[in-house]
Amino acid sequence: MNSYAQRLEQVRRLMASQEVDYLFLAPGANMFYLTGIRTVPDERLQVLAVPREGSPILILPEMYGEAAGRSQAWFNLVTWCDGLDLSTLIASAVGPLKRAAVDKKLWAGHFLTLINVLGECRFVEADDIMGSVRVTKDDFELESLGRSANLADKAMAQAAEKIRPGMTEKELALLIENTLKSFGAEDISFKPIIASGPNGSLPHHSPQERELQRGDFVVMDFGAVAEGYCSDITRTFFIGRADAASRELYRVVQQANETGFQAASMGAPCERVDAAARAVIAGAGYGRNFIHRTGHGIGLDYHEDPYIVQGNAAPLQPGMVFSIEPGIYLQGKLGIRIEDIVAVTESGPVRLNQFPRELIEIT
Amino acid sequence: MNSYAQRLEQVRRLMASQEVDYLFLAPGANMFYLTGIRTVPDERLQVLAVPREGSPILILPEMYGEAAGRSQAWFNLVTWCDGLDLSTLIASAVGPLKRAAVDKKLWAGHFLTLINVLGECRFVEADDIMGSVRVTKDDFELESLGRSANLADKAMAQAAEKIRPGMTEKELALLIENTLKSFGAEDISFKPIIASGPNGSLPHHSPQERELQRGDFVVMDFGAVAEGYCSDITRTFFIGRADAASRELYRVVQQANETGFQAASMGAPCERVDAAARAVIAGAGYGRNFIHRTGHGIGLDYHEDPYIVQGNAAPLQPGMVFSIEPGIYLQGKLGIRIEDIVAVTESGPVRLNQFPRELIEIT
Repeated sequence: MNSYAQRLEQVRRLMASQEVDYLFLAPGANMFYLTGIRTVPDERLQVLAVPREGSPILILPEMYGEAAGRSQAWFNLVTWCDGLDLSTLIASAVGPLKRAAVDKKLWAGHFLTLINVLGECRFVEADDIMGSVRVTKDDFELESLGRSANLADKAMAQAAEKIRPGMTEKELALLIENTLKSFGAEDISFKPIIASGPNGSLPHHSPQERELQRGDFVVMDFGAVAEGYCSDITRTFFIGRADAASRELYRVVQQANETGFQAASMGAPCERVDAAARAVIAGAGYGRNFIHRTGHGIGLDYHEDPYIVQGNAAPLQPGMVFSIEPGIYLQGKLGIRIEDIVAVTESGPVRLNQFPRELIEIT
Repeated sequence: MNSYAQRLEQVRRLMASQEVDYLFLAPGANMFYLTGIRTVPDERLQVLAVPREGSPILILPEMYGEAAGRSQAWFNLVTWCDGLDLSTLIASAVGPLKRAAVDKKLWAGHFLTLINVLGECRFVEADDIMGSVRVTKDDFELESLGRSANLADKAMAQAAEKIRPGMTEKELALLIENTLKSFGAEDISFKPIIASGPNGSLPHHSPQERELQRGDFVVMDFGAVAEGYCSDITRTFFIGRADAASRELYRVVQQANETGFQAASMGAPCERVDAAARAVIAGAGYGRNFIHRTGHGIGLDYHEDPYIVQGNAAPLQPGMVFSIEPGIYLQGKLGIRIEDIVAVTESGPVRLNQFPRELIEIT
């Protein structure tokens, strides 16, 4: 892994080029990326303040002092206890600024505190900086992403073995969560989406008590966390024997996935991958039924740069890792989505997921 | 349950008194409270914009259109698809404003979009409004909170039965999660905190591979979600027979919990409950080892108003529900915390948790 010092240097180069005096990072992926410290974001102000020069300052509630103190402290740790005036603390720690960048995930409440203290400061989004650094994964990160993807593959294989008509969406979601953890996932990257039959047309459906039935497509979308890095896989099984029309619909999505994958070569603009996958679905007459972007980057966050979406002309570079997940959604009827995580290399795109993409019928 | 229309009316009364033209609410508790709609917050703009008069506008990515369209639409649903210019959408939907309030949990990135579009608008935190309305629970909410607390009690009873030396923190956490779900929790309110032995001094410790050992205090802090409402309970068991010193330390925390509970009567300022619990711990010589506030309100969020903390002089009112969770943390040695959820009624405080608070020794 690149050391925290190396990462900080990269970040500071971008701060300089964008004339950003200070970076305010929230608990979560950005704070972890630069410090290795994990906390739970909540209403208590937690922020890593990174000046263009000099030591970064990590501001945390007193209760995190011991945990943060255990890590290698190349930053100044400032803990605060209840009753303290945070405005004074920030003003004295940071001083007046012209231009600062703020973590896009910082809570607006904490951002308002910064705005009120720093008066004249102009704020921009820190994602232009942090996203640019984090978007290219080093070898350690690629290995972690590979392990994480492998956990997802193994859980999908378990799901294929255990899934039965009569099982509820919630039961299947719980089975998958437990499988991921039993194989060694340190966490799940998000709550599993299990969307069966007509629920399938809701891309972010939350599992309910609905029982899987013969004739259902079942969309299963989930991921693991390994060494902090997320995976994300989607497969759509068919309960029973699929008729010709269902097979054809599935084939279109599988072809869109494959075409998107083939388009993901070094130098191609991100939006070209989206356009390639979308063209397959549109060509089959379902353009209006593919109601989301083709993919998103993945790493410490399960959604991060690069976004595989219309309007993103940034060229793909080796070390970029993202999902390709085209889908067709027929309102009130069904959904089909097939998703793999793909890494860009100099010799072409590589899938991190190995689980088969062919239609699986549960008979 | 109060209808969405009644809730909106309450919110608007406060908007008027605070001269707030518009309220911008994020996906999560506030959006759910006013619409019944649940989505997953992410980098795609989702916001419920509530004007002081006229129909609220719910702005969501296209992929949520079907789900949002299913609910009773007393608001205008505006969905956007990739490639659309959100600034134009917001500007045309909302128009120029003088003063707006923003959800404290809205992501800073989305808040920046609003700031940039709404130029001259002065922003304040919406928590003064939404917190004030949500802080008093109606009968439906109290029943849900009771069911949620009951799930937590039952899971704690299971933990008491199953916990063994040699079990890891992670195994115990997984057992508790599965127990909560098997009893019918629709979700967990946060990732269980299982902190054994020396890990106990980290109030928000994330469960690790450490095995429970004889002589450990084990802090177990978790909660369920029922009908959207969270519970939160903490108990600290002892593995083996506790010696006199350990028993005495535990007794202090139990006494602090009881004293805080007795202080939670209608009309008392929130900070008096904190002071009452804290005085017990300070009186025993451990004032510096109680490194967090005594409690937090609970409802659709597991942390919300009222905060039981120094500086909060707001008087307790019937229908307020919050945690009382004093603790003692000895760095590198142990932690002890005992937490119940308490509701204020006209005839005094009532505990929603029934699981015993006496020291349980696992022998």
